[in-house]
Amino acid sequence: MRGRALPDKGRLILVLGGARSGKSAHAEKRIEAQPPPWAYLATAQAFDAEMSERIAIHRARRDRRWSTHDAPLDLVGALATPEAGGPVLVDCLTLWLSNQMLAGRDVEAETARLVAALAAPRGLWVAVANEVGLGIVPDNALARRFRDAAGRLNQAVAAVADEVLFMVAGLPMRVK
Amino acid sequence: MRGRALPDKGRLILVLGGARSGKSAHAEKRIEAQPPPWAYLATAQAFDAEMSERIAIHRARRDRRWSTHDAPLDLVGALATPEAGGPVLVDCLTLWLSNQMLAGRDVEAETARLVAALAAPRGLWVAVANEVGLGIVPDNALARRFRDAAGRLNQAVAAVADEVLFMVAGLPMRVK
Amino acid sequence: MRGRALPDKGRLILVLGGARSGKSAHAEKRIEAQPPPWAYLATAQAFDAEMSERIAIHRARRDRRWSTHDAPLDLVGALATPEAGGPVLVDCLTLWLSNQMLAGRDVEAETARLVAALAAPRGLWVAVANEVGLGIVPDNALARRFRDAAGRLNQAVAAVADEVLFMVAGLPMRVK
Repeated sequence: MRGRALPDKGRLILVLGGARSGKSAHAEKRIEAQPPPWAYLATAQAFDAEMSERIAIHRARRDRRWSTHDAPLDLVGALATPEAGGPVLVDCLTLWLSNQMLAGRDVEAETARLVAALAAPRGLWVAVANEVGLGIVPDNALARRFRDAAGRLNQAVAAVADEVLFMVAGLPMRVK
Repeated sequence: MRGRALPDKGRLILVLGGARSGKSAHAEKRIEAQPPPWAYLATAQAFDAEMSERIAIHRARRDRRWSTHDAPLDLVGALATPEAGGPVLVDCLTLWLSNQMLAGRDVEAETARLVAALAAPRGLWVAVANEVGLGIVPDNALARRFRDAAGRLNQAVAAVADEVLFMVAGLPMRVK
Repeated sequence: MRGRALPDKGRLILVLGGARSGKSAHAEKRIEAQPPPWAYLATAQAFDAEMSERIAIHRARRDRRWSTHDAPLDLVGALATPEAGGPVLVDCLTLWLSNQMLAGRDVEAETARLVAALAAPRGLWVAVANEVGLGIVPDNALARRFRDAAGRLNQAVAAVADEVLFMVAGLPMRVK
């Protein structure tokens, strides 16, 4: 726990990892170790069948003690609601960033606002994010910009997090 | 060592990592710390010159104390032979998965069968696998399906492994 | 510190990581913990506006206690100058490798020469390199060759380094 004016007020865990590395399952396990109810802030938008299926699989894993809130763009607003005063799972920051870029928002300003909100958790907050920068440099400029923005977002959230995990094959490695 | 009915009966090590991260060399070193003979279960298929060269380089590193068995699809069968009752190197699970997909097999069912076999090692078994999910989301759907299947396979094998390593620049990081 | 004929003569740190993982910032911090002056060996070449911008951002972070030397190809020569007798930041090995390939050099021979130079640090030497092998296998053969060469270079430098770090979201994980 960080030194805070109000100890035990909140705690932020960042769960990083690649595709299918077990990020969401681990994040859910951490939240479910707390007494319910649990809030799930979903940033995924179902643009196609593949995405709908991924969302459905994630949703099927969670029971009624979870309340799900769609927050594809306004995560800051969702984190300010009364429901976010307890255990909150944010899944995931990388899709939120992608949504901001697709919507033509000022990504740097939105990132700063989100990081400020995450820096003041009001309960156990667990945020999931993808690591996307460990492959070959992408051919197209948009993918490179996204990769850079995702890396900067991950660094900024990690800097204010109390705990940072890097998932490898479903297993957490403690980074911070 | 996990708690098992028959202690010292076997042990499974999963060696994960990216391309040219030193996975195979580390796996061979672990096997060669055991008394020979050593079995090498090769899943690579030489479809082209590039692949033939990679296979030849790997093969040249191993001396006569190794017996090499090609098992592009039937790893479960190869793991049931008498040769697999001692030290066994499986190189690698990711190519095996790729072979299953190319052959049109039921990947989920084959993965479950393989994981069940790997969960009951009859000697020191070291399995090598690639981490492929840490780059930008691939453009094409087949690559995304492969990436998902590889991530699920890695998680399932890691769950039953006694030891999991993540290779970085030839150096092992202990994950489990 | 490794056992060396002349203890405290030098030390090599390898800082590995993905895009925007905080490699350069961490490397600079390590160098700036030493008394100035500090030498910066830059391997980046500005072929386009995007690259010029990246170079300018990195340069703006460093003050006058740094002397910057461009070494897109001749890193071995730059490491032999009097300026490299103290704290040196090499940023980065992966761009140097890319420059060698673009220039049609013998990558294997150049890598061996560079690794021999890095193995005899004459002060605190910090080398930055990208991990590029953790995504899906690239479609084109040139990208695969580059990925293989980068992995081999990282392994060879890690083998002679006193300390190896893997950066995740701005945070160093100790590998060696």
